[in-house]
Amino acid sequence: MEITIIGHARTPWTRRQDAPHQPSAARDASGTIEITELYRPALASLETFTRIWLIFLFDRSTGFAAQVKPPRGGPRRGVLATRAPNRPSQIGLTCVGLTALNRDAGVLHVVGIDLLDGTPILDIKPYLPFVDAWPDAGHGWLEADLAAGREPRLRKPWQPPRTGG
Amino acid sequence: MEITIIGHARTPWTRRQDAPHQPSAARDASGTIEITELYRPALASLETFTRIWLIFLFDRSTGFAAQVKPPRGGPRRGVLATRAPNRPSQIGLTCVGLTALNRDAGVLHVVGIDLLDGTPILDIKPYLPFVDAWPDAGHGWLEADLAAGREPRLRKPWQPPRTGG
Repeated sequence: MEITIIGHARTPWTRRQDAPHQPSAARDASGTIEITELYRPALASLETFTRIWLIFLFDRSTGFAAQVKPPRGGPRRGVLATRAPNRPSQIGLTCVGLTALNRDAGVLHVVGIDLLDGTPILDIKPYLPFVDAWPDAGHGWLEADLAAGREPRLRKPWQPPRTGG
Repeated sequence: MEITIIGHARTPWTRRQDAPHQPSAARDASGTIEITELYRPALASLETFTRIWLIFLFDRSTGFAAQVKPPRGGPRRGVLATRAPNRPSQIGLTCVGLTALNRDAGVLHVVGIDLLDGTPILDIKPYLPFVDAWPDAGHGWLEADLAAGREPRLRKPWQPPRTGG
């Protein structure tokens, strides 16, 4: 199956070992997303949103592993029950704050970004609370870690002002 | 760029014109996700979550369109500022409730599903409220539609019980 790369991330994280494991660890990290010229017209109206999804490729992943050891310890988990890079499709998902958009230049300024510098971007979607926000969904096997305080990165990243539009 | 298909959706929606535009329109629709044998070991521990992300291919999309007309009217919007199928990478994202998992058979029972029957699944991720839930993020250009009552599908789909664990 062929897939299209629409741009790349420019971030402070250049080495895999430096990158945070989740956006909550990168709450103040700002970066940019550079979109290929062909796809810039598709950005129209994106500036009305304060948060967006980035769908990206884990291009420096070590490849597929059916089960992985979580960074906070505990038993191995199926990779599809984690957000680890070693997924079959090597596709990642992260929610960032959108602070500015220069559509002509194809540059998005974002905050709370946890991607490595140069990460290929496959898609950008607006964050829509009415279908995406489930604050009471529970954290599955991670609950035990959270209850035991084994998640120092649980604080929410910077919350952009609600603009509406 | 090559991408891997890990399984397919089985749903009540067989024709494009019948499918809901968002999971909120499919609140009671249940279906299954069938995972290829190779990837079933990667499902371990997924049963501890009540909600999951499905990342899928819009395989019956009519192809890339930089700008699209929203189904509820109003001006054209850049496709990246919508959740429409006509995206550069044809990748979709939807959050569904997970009601049961048969790991050996590779079958997930889900509810609130808005995918067409046979849709190729690229990835499954656990929904993690601490990084995914942003109830106050705003709805961008959709706010005007919502305020004017032009969104009859705004009700949240079925909310699975919080299990934790």
